[in-house]
Amino acid sequence: MSTEDFTVTPWSVEGDIDYDKLIQKFGTEKISEQVLSRVEKITGELHPMLKLGYFFSHRDFDKILTEYERGNKFYLYTGRGPSGSIHMGHLLPWIFTKYLQEKFDVNLIFQITDDEKFLYNDDRTLQDVSKYTTENICDIIAVGFDPKKTKILIDTKDIKRIYPISLEIAKRITFSTVKAVFGFQNSTNIGMVGFPPIQAAPCFLPSVIEGRPTPVLIPAAIDQDPYWRVTRDIAEKIGFPKPTQIHSKFLPGLGMQGKMSSSIPETAIFTTDTEEAIDKKISNTFTGGQPTVDLQRKLGANFNICPVFWYLRYFFDTEKESDERARKCRAGELLCGECKCNLKDATKPFIADFKKKREKAKNEIDKFMFD
Amino acid sequence: MSTEDFTVTPWSVEGDIDYDKLIQKFGTEKISEQVLSRVEKITGELHPMLKLGYFFSHRDFDKILTEYERGNKFYLYTGRGPSGSIHMGHLLPWIFTKYLQEKFDVNLIFQITDDEKFLYNDDRTLQDVSKYTTENICDIIAVGFDPKKTKILIDTKDIKRIYPISLEIAKRITFSTVKAVFGFQNSTNIGMVGFPPIQAAPCFLPSVIEGRPTPVLIPAAIDQDPYWRVTRDIAEKIGFPKPTQIHSKFLPGLGMQGKMSSSIPETAIFTTDTEEAIDKKISNTFTGGQPTVDLQRKLGANFNICPVFWYLRYFFDTEKESDERARKCRAGELLCGECKCNLKDATKPFIADFKKKREKAKNEIDKFMFD
Repeated sequence: MSTEDFTVTPWSVEGDIDYDKLIQKFGTEKISEQVLSRVEKITGELHPMLKLGYFFSHRDFDKILTEYERGNKFYLYTGRGPSGSIHMGHLLPWIFTKYLQEKFDVNLIFQITDDEKFLYNDDRTLQDVSKYTTENICDIIAVGFDPKKTKILIDTKDIKRIYPISLEIAKRITFSTVKAVFGFQNSTNIGMVGFPPIQAAPCFLPSVIEGRPTPVLIPAAIDQDPYWRVTRDIAEKIGFPKPTQIHSKFLPGLGMQGKMSSSIPETAIFTTDTEEAIDKKISNTFTGGQPTVDLQRKLGANFNICPVFWYLRYFFDTEKESDERARKCRAGELLCGECKCNLKDATKPFIADFKKKREKAKNEIDKFMFD
Repeated sequence: MSTEDFTVTPWSVEGDIDYDKLIQKFGTEKISEQVLSRVEKITGELHPMLKLGYFFSHRDFDKILTEYERGNKFYLYTGRGPSGSIHMGHLLPWIFTKYLQEKFDVNLIFQITDDEKFLYNDDRTLQDVSKYTTENICDIIAVGFDPKKTKILIDTKDIKRIYPISLEIAKRITFSTVKAVFGFQNSTNIGMVGFPPIQAAPCFLPSVIEGRPTPVLIPAAIDQDPYWRVTRDIAEKIGFPKPTQIHSKFLPGLGMQGKMSSSIPETAIFTTDTEEAIDKKISNTFTGGQPTVDLQRKLGANFNICPVFWYLRYFFDTEKESDERARKCRAGELLCGECKCNLKDATKPFIADFKKKREKAKNEIDKFMFD
């Protein structure tokens, strides 16, 4: 999906993203106050990422709630393409997924699309991808998913579980469709052309596992939406419920260009970063501030485009603290250095703690595997 | 591959096939007298299907012989798309493959492409295909392959074994290539588009199993050649030996239109046919004969276009008997009724015996499975 000002596809997120425009272009629905209050009623508390609009859009999330209220539990399904190390931008939807798992007490399937990451990049070997698969799984486990209710599905290892479902899907999608939806060309390799059904298949795996139609909710960044759009078109034709989605925004990179990126390490704080690296990255980032202190005091700053503000808002500030920070920023009562210090002080113990969990996770991988 | 007079692709064989033209168009090599004498030297005897030219073309079969003479054993690889019941036309290359397995004392991988048969036909369910998979495997086993040296690989069940190899292949083939080689269109489903690497992967499985580059020889009807052409182009790029082939002609259908076809049951004698059905099909078939006995005595008949002649030649006659039959046919010394009787008399006990082996095979399936 590309407009004049920004691009959002599963392989590229660029520019200053207008999320309202994205909802309109993708044909999804904004998460309404009404939906939020239904979630709050069920879960007892609204997760900050819902309250603060990090998860902002959906497809049929309301129907999932209705089914749940009737006693029909759903499965969660999300995934990771293991092309690099995990940074804080990756953690946000996973932390939110963990919240959903806890509050709704439901199963989760976590797909590792190692095949796609291999197929996408000419220079990447299966061995390269395999290294990240193992590393990324440690990060996933460190988020704290319930091992009794979570299965990690690695495409190349667990292909047998999803292959027959993917065939049912593949049979119903033409090259014309993937050309239009994913922008594939005649020069695209046929592995990529044939991949979308592999990512779609886990939408229907819960129904196969449970032996009855089982709804699925996918919490994921909105750039993955094209996969689900195609999948939804096919679902009922092959006797499965349409997968439903809840879409997140992107955490702005340190440098404010699209989402954080593993391929530009300075734009992201990784779960393996040292304290020095964290200090340096936060010190060096762009902010929404003015060129001089005097101007900032006089004109105020623009928190809206400031990665430091959004990191603090989504990860560390309470809603009240964040609103107050926004007010003071706009009014020129706050200098960027102060926010950067707050972010450093909060991030360093967060990452230190995560590293410990990540170490522990290395011995827990088997608990999360399908076979 | 289509010329004015005939069409040969993996999905369609039509018209009166000029095999010399096919060698030229496909860019394969005719099996020379020199190659035949090398085979005879190694095996002690030349199989009638080689001697009589049923296997007529190859790619690098001579190289396989050179490696074999040096002490490097190859694997055999062939396959079956389980879209219907097995007829005598299917058995020929399998009987020949068994001969190769015995004489060269080598392993065989037999792939069942149930996925492709599902993807190809809109009306076919995975259950439909699964039924034929089990039935066809009984036929394969009944041919008499060595269970210690033969593994049957069912794509949907054993996908894990070939998926990583198929990814390496898929990454190196563009949509443009499969469009040109297989005639795929924008309206082709992406399952079919992504399938060729699945059929190509077993070419390299022996190298993976053995942990060293292991040559592979594929005995198969020439309509499958496009798969191997594409595979050969990629092999060395991913560190595997180029697969080699030995190509068969098609057994003419009872009715002489392209190869025997499961979709037109009258054109083929199935391994499950009753004696009555065999009698009826042979009685009703076209031959190379003249409209009247008088004309046949006067002008002779054309064995070249006669399915009865070719069935007898490839399955039942010795070379000497067959040559004599040809001579007498051409000279008008033989009437079609006599040949039909010969064929009935030979086919009925052959099928009766095969049925017994097929029944026995039902209890031996596990011995031939990978897992």
